Amino acid sequence: MGERIWKVYLAGEIHSDWRERIEAGAREAGLPVEFTAPVTDHPASDAAGTGTLGEEAEAFWRDHKGAGVNAIRTQTLIRAADLVVVRFGVRYRQWNAAFDAGLAAALGKPIVTVHDPDLDHALKEVDRAAQATARDSEQVVDVLRYVIAGQLPRS
Amino acid sequence: MGERIWKVYLAGEIHSDWRERIEAGAREAGLPVEFTAPVTDHPASDAAGTGTLGEEAEAFWRDHKGAGVNAIRTQTLIRAADLVVVRFGVRYRQWNAAFDAGLAAALGKPIVTVHDPDLDHALKEVDRAAQATARDSEQVVDVLRYVIAGQLPRS
Amino acid sequence: MGERIWKVYLAGEIHSDWRERIEAGAREAGLPVEFTAPVTDHPASDAAGTGTLGEEAEAFWRDHKGAGVNAIRTQTLIRAADLVVVRFGVRYRQWNAAFDAGLAAALGKPIVTVHDPDLDHALKEVDRAAQATARDSEQVVDVLRYVIAGQLPRS
Amino acid sequence: MGERIWKVYLAGEIHSDWRERIEAGAREAGLPVEFTAPVTDHPASDAAGTGTLGEEAEAFWRDHKGAGVNAIRTQTLIRAADLVVVRFGVRYRQWNAAFDAGLAAALGKPIVTVHDPDLDHALKEVDRAAQATARDSEQVVDVLRYVIAGQLPRS
Amino acid sequence: MGERIWKVYLAGEIHSDWRERIEAGAREAGLPVEFTAPVTDHPASDAAGTGTLGEEAEAFWRDHKGAGVNAIRTQTLIRAADLVVVRFGVRYRQWNAAFDAGLAAALGKPIVTVHDPDLDHALKEVDRAAQATARDSEQVVDVLRYVIAGQLPRS
Amino acid sequence: MGERIWKVYLAGEIHSDWRERIEAGAREAGLPVEFTAPVTDHPASDAAGTGTLGEEAEAFWRDHKGAGVNAIRTQTLIRAADLVVVRFGVRYRQWNAAFDAGLAAALGKPIVTVHDPDLDHALKEVDRAAQATARDSEQVVDVLRYVIAGQLPRS
Amino acid sequence: MGERIWKVYLAGEIHSDWRERIEAGAREAGLPVEFTAPVTDHPASDAAGTGTLGEEAEAFWRDHKGAGVNAIRTQTLIRAADLVVVRFGVRYRQWNAAFDAGLAAALGKPIVTVHDPDLDHALKEVDRAAQATARDSEQVVDVLRYVIAGQLPRS
Amino acid sequence: MGERIWKVYLAGEIHSDWRERIEAGAREAGLPVEFTAPVTDHPASDAAGTGTLGEEAEAFWRDHKGAGVNAIRTQTLIRAADLVVVRFGVRYRQWNAAFDAGLAAALGKPIVTVHDPDLDHALKEVDRAAQATARDSEQVVDVLRYVIAGQLPRS
Repeated sequence: MGERIWKVYLAGEIHSDWRERIEAGAREAGLPVEFTAPVTDHPASDAAGTGTLGEEAEAFWRDHKGAGVNAIRTQTLIRAADLVVVRFGVRYRQWNAAFDAGLAAALGKPIVTVHDPDLDHALKEVDRAAQATARDSEQVVDVLRYVIAGQLPRS
Repeated sequence: MGERIWKVYLAGEIHSDWRERIEAGAREAGLPVEFTAPVTDHPASDAAGTGTLGEEAEAFWRDHKGAGVNAIRTQTLIRAADLVVVRFGVRYRQWNAAFDAGLAAALGKPIVTVHDPDLDHALKEVDRAAQATARDSEQVVDVLRYVIAGQLPRS
Repeated sequence: MGERIWKVYLAGEIHSDWRERIEAGAREAGLPVEFTAPVTDHPASDAAGTGTLGEEAEAFWRDHKGAGVNAIRTQTLIRAADLVVVRFGVRYRQWNAAFDAGLAAALGKPIVTVHDPDLDHALKEVDRAAQATARDSEQVVDVLRYVIAGQLPRS
Repeated sequence: MGERIWKVYLAGEIHSDWRERIEAGAREAGLPVEFTAPVTDHPASDAAGTGTLGEEAEAFWRDHKGAGVNAIRTQTLIRAADLVVVRFGVRYRQWNAAFDAGLAAALGKPIVTVHDPDLDHALKEVDRAAQATARDSEQVVDVLRYVIAGQLPRS
Repeated sequence: MGERIWKVYLAGEIHSDWRERIEAGAREAGLPVEFTAPVTDHPASDAAGTGTLGEEAEAFWRDHKGAGVNAIRTQTLIRAADLVVVRFGVRYRQWNAAFDAGLAAALGKPIVTVHDPDLDHALKEVDRAAQATARDSEQVVDVLRYVIAGQLPRS
Repeated sequence: MGERIWKVYLAGEIHSDWRERIEAGAREAGLPVEFTAPVTDHPASDAAGTGTLGEEAEAFWRDHKGAGVNAIRTQTLIRAADLVVVRFGVRYRQWNAAFDAGLAAALGKPIVTVHDPDLDHALKEVDRAAQATARDSEQVVDVLRYVIAGQLPRS
Repeated sequence: MGERIWKVYLAGEIHSDWRERIEAGAREAGLPVEFTAPVTDHPASDAAGTGTLGEEAEAFWRDHKGAGVNAIRTQTLIRAADLVVVRFGVRYRQWNAAFDAGLAAALGKPIVTVHDPDLDHALKEVDRAAQATARDSEQVVDVLRYVIAGQLPRS
Repeated sequence: MGERIWKVYLAGEIHSDWRERIEAGAREAGLPVEFTAPVTDHPASDAAGTGTLGEEAEAFWRDHKGAGVNAIRTQTLIRAADLVVVRFGVRYRQWNAAFDAGLAAALGKPIVTVHDPDLDHALKEVDRAAQATARDSEQVVDVLRYVIAGQLPRS
């Protein structure tokens, strides 16, 4: 089973190092995973449209243009993924994270949500559509190790 | 063309009368629309699981149980809809609204978002996946009248 | 919303009156539901193939022939359903009930399982794929009343 | 045709060496097959949720949590498979095996069931949805050799 | 269950009264079925293209044109059907009947084949993809009566 | 067969009376057809976005907004149609007509194209994806009469 | 573009060397194609079921068993193919070839049929669903060379 | 993320060097992209049918034959693509480009259109279905660099 490369898309929060911690943990565990993600450089992401296709006078269309370019990346990688991990942070509304989860659910992709307990009530619909809810990146690594290699953390 | 009944699902915010205003406007315009929606009685919605299937000791599973029962309704009606209208209010995080939009997008349903301009930047990914962004219920009625009956508002 | 007829398929156990109790409860609650089910007359079901297409010498092919004819009914009705309710009784292995649940899950149909707590561990995979697990027909009626009419049982 | 790697998922019974015998037989026959399977370490499988995401007070939710984590693995591998082999043993109810078969059927995957003749009547619906019913691992290897290499067993 | 109208498409042979006998039998049994079929007037069918869209000099394109127009009807009705019955007669090659069966199989429609035993070997692949193989129209009516009304023929 | 209502979407050219002639012909022939179409009032169509959702400063976004609102109608009706008829006139580029044909083809809808012979070479890819190419509305009526009622024009 | 390997399934007639001629021609032309096919050893194919899963007393079920095992191979390879070539010879009825074509059509696979002109009328429905009709293996190679490498035969 | 090869199909105009400029730009930027395209040799493309499958007397069928052979290539490559770029030039009607865009849209593929501003109004429906509209090949390269590598052009 060692040959199979699992494709895992890491959606959501872009203001903490949660992705790096998952990637480091998976590497350390020797798991055959190929991680993908949205562009996590916030200013670059906001300029995705105007920086490639030219300026826009109005904020709405600037955002629209950027969201279109970003969607090429995010939706392609979600469709190609075996598993979608979605992290909700305490700051920002992160509607795009919830949107990605809805997209993944309708495409039949398994979902792992990651967030603190105080967001539980607000995220109940998204958590219900997920196969697992983790509290931090370490738990996500534990889930990946079990799912891919069949091993539980030694305790 | 008068015979076709359009099925429109009204997702999102449950703390204002935006749905009633769309329904009243559509009725007034004589449009053949059948509206559906989630259960909008907030306490009932929160008790959807425990009120039907029995109490739960822990908050997480109480929400989980309720979200499961609510999903039977919402996902069935979204799948049956021709058009999904999603309203984001200024209060609450409304991740379920964004989740519903992601689900609708992946199912190939056209989407109309409804929200104030100050949410534009935060909702840019959802708006990009929509066919139209309206500012209020009256504009949604105008869109429905045009889409269904081919008529623009007289000005 | 009164016009929408919900199509509910009642899969699984055929040796108790659980279906009749759901149907009676839904009728009493005035819910617009159209129930469908497999043929629940056990001897007729076992003779579905040989009784229509001629005798078979071997038991395996007799069952095979009957299962084919029954599948025309069950799979058509599951595909046409909005919701699939699956009841597991304590007697018999009821692999066809679990098979129907797997089929429904892959088709994106919401599922409600119904069984006693002592089957919980054995049914955990099926329950996980369901939106709700009920203990009896009365709870199923409560779920239907909430899902369709937005009403919780008065207590 | 030698380059094609066939992906075969081995679902069902986890208390005998039937998988190892198929894998050994396929290796011996030089067949280009990549086998996948659920986690077959029973205690690990039962602890899949609590061992990775934290303890649960109630048995129902403990199972629910574990089934969610296991489903990430099983459903991903079933969706990726060319062929699903499902073994039913005489012990245990193995509803998850029948559930996997239903899932595979709706996804258009060919199925081979494996079981003793005394389970024939109980498994008739699942067998009918399968392309073949084998009695033991050796017959499964014979089917794989024919399907992949076009060779029948020498007798 | 009386309200459900079953849609049955009758594909294949057009040189005997097998369709009329099924329709008469279903009517007599009071079954709620709506039958559809290809155009069974052979000369009209052969002229479907040239009779509507103008003459063609070459036989190949004459047939091509006709087959296109006929396909509008047949493929639309097969896609709309709950069940596809395919009759193979002893005369003619009837490749279109086998083609329709392949189409129906890939669309997930249940199939009932109807033919004499001496065609069994030649039709084994098509029969294998079907849920049932009947020998005559009376058996098809028996299958329909069982599938729709749950009744076996009295004997 | 008289009960089936065929849903036919009339895409393309909006500057001639070709739709009215098809509708009149079908009515005269007593065919059970429900026709749908884009909004064919050119100025209204161009103002679909700004007339319902507010003015736009730039032409590109004005068109974008209008095209979004029009797409709600056109794509919903194409998805609901049994058959898509696409007319290409000699004026204008009508890329939206070809786009609609591509959409219909990928959705598995049968297509009838309608255009003069001097557009044959330019439209060869679209015609190849269609089941029939007609020269005028009268031929489309003849095709509909054959497809729905099995009758060829008397000559 | 040299890296893309095209997957071509060669369905139909098994009593002539038409496959070998296509494979030799493609090899000679240096085309990156991976050919797949049903088991073309006729006696082996007829014994596919009984030779792997045990004898059957009745001819019908012997064929049924064999057809099931063969379907694992053929339907998997058709689903994996980019292009399906279907050859109809003058002998035998080859309903399985037409069935494969129907399957491929519903799965959205392009089809090339290969047969002599005297089968044109009988095969008109299958030819209409194909993208091309060739008369011999050499023409199929010419089509492959054009489709893959963009080159026409020098004449 | 370096391992992922993006598959980009370049549809539309065949009379300028726009494809070469995108390919050169992507190569220069070191992007892991595999480009595919229709056959861009115009005379070869027009002779795709007759050059491989034999002459045709009538222009309509000559085109039909060629369009069928070309469709094997274009539709296979569009279905295999992650992203479809469609260029509309000022000359020719290029209905096939718009058709390809419609096909891609219904298949859920992201689209980038490329054209001059004076085609904006005529292409508004196609642009609306696209994720981005570029003005030249350099902008397409900028979009690819951002989408694949997360980098904006330095300015």
